[in-house]
Amino acid sequence: MKLCQRVEIALPEWVEDFVGEALDGSGVVIRTHEERMALAVALSRENVRRQTGGPFGAIVVNEDSGELLGVGVNLVTHLQLSTAHAEMVAFALAQQAVSSWNLGSAGPIQLVTSCEPCAMCFGAVPWSGVRSLICGARKMHAEAAGFDEGDKPADWVESLRRRGIRVELDVLGDEASRVLHDYAASDGPIDHPGRPPGGL
Amino acid sequence: MKLCQRVEIALPEWVEDFVGEALDGSGVVIRTHEERMALAVALSRENVRRQTGGPFGAIVVNEDSGELLGVGVNLVTHLQLSTAHAEMVAFALAQQAVSSWNLGSAGPIQLVTSCEPCAMCFGAVPWSGVRSLICGARKMHAEAAGFDEGDKPADWVESLRRRGIRVELDVLGDEASRVLHDYAASDGPIDHPGRPPGGL
Repeated sequence: MKLCQRVEIALPEWVEDFVGEALDGSGVVIRTHEERMALAVALSRENVRRQTGGPFGAIVVNEDSGELLGVGVNLVTHLQLSTAHAEMVAFALAQQAVSSWNLGSAGPIQLVTSCEPCAMCFGAVPWSGVRSLICGARKMHAEAAGFDEGDKPADWVESLRRRGIRVELDVLGDEASRVLHDYAASDGPIDHPGRPPGGL
Repeated sequence: MKLCQRVEIALPEWVEDFVGEALDGSGVVIRTHEERMALAVALSRENVRRQTGGPFGAIVVNEDSGELLGVGVNLVTHLQLSTAHAEMVAFALAQQAVSSWNLGSAGPIQLVTSCEPCAMCFGAVPWSGVRSLICGARKMHAEAAGFDEGDKPADWVESLRRRGIRVELDVLGDEASRVLHDYAASDGPIDHPGRPPGGL
C-alpha cells in the first residue's frame, strides 16, 4: 500500500452555477436567516438530484452583512471521504476564502445548515470560529431517514452557547425535513458504516 | 468575495521521509500497539519541531496485519483549516488510499492517536469505519497544555464500544503526554478561537 500524501475536497461542478442562479442578481449577500436557510436547503435537495451525495447542505455567511463566504454539500460518497459532511466542506472552503482557520478573524460569522449537526460537525463548530449556528431539520428527521447522527452531549445547544455561539433551531424546518423525508422515500443510500448502503 | 471551490489537504514534505526512517526497513507493517503509538507520538513531536502544526499525530493501520494505511499530523495552522486535526487527516488519506469512505471495507482498521480525540474527532470515529481506537495522552494532558478539547459525551468510550469500536487508553501515555508538556513549556501557539494564539 503506497501512503497517500494529499487529498482534495472539491465541490461538484454544478454548485457554482446553482448558487449563482439561486442568488439571482442579489450578488453574494443574503439578508435574512430564512433566505440563508432556503439556499442551504436548496443545496441539500440539488445534491441528491445531481447524485453527488446525501441530502445535506450548508453555507457560511457574515451574520451581519449576509455576505456569502462558503458553500458545502455532503460529499462523502462523491469524494470517498467520511468527514466530507456539508458543514465540514463549508468550513473548509470558507476558511480557504478568508485565508484563516479562524473564521472569527473575518468578522461575525454564521454557519447555516439544512440539518442539525451530527456529533462530528457539532464538535467542529467551536474550532471554526463561527459566532452563530442556524439549523433547519432536527436530528430526529435525519434519523427517520436512516442516518446515524452520532452521540452529541445531551445539552449540545447549551454547550455551544457557553462558548459564545448562539444557536437557532427549526428555521424553515418543514422545508428542510421534507428533503430528508423525500430522500428516504426514494431509498437513497446511507453513507455510514452502521447500516448497509441502501438499507434504511 | 470569490467563492472557493476546492481545498487540498496535503502532508508536509518531511512526513514521507520521516515515516520511512521511523519504520527503518520494516516496510509498512507495524506489529504491536506500542510500536504503532511510538510512530504516532514521534509524528506529534516532529510536527512541532518542523513548525507545521500542533503536537498531535495519528496513524491508521490494519489492526491484524499492522499494515500502515495512512498518516496524519495536526495541520490547522499550516493549512489554515480548523478541521485538519491529526485524526481527520489520517482518516482522509487512508480513505483515499483504499478508495473508500468506509475503512471497514478494507479490513479491520485501527486509528492510533497520540492524544485522546477531541469532540470533533470523537464524532468522526464511527463515520470512518474503524474497528478500534488506541489513544496515548489524555484530554487532561492536552488541556494542561492549553488546548480546548471540546465537549464529548461523558461516556464517550462506552458510546464507541456500543457501536462496536474497541478503545484502549494510555498506550505509551507518558511519552505521549510529554510532547504536550514540552509544547506548553516552549509557549507553542494554540489553534482554537477560545484563546489567543500563543496564550496558554
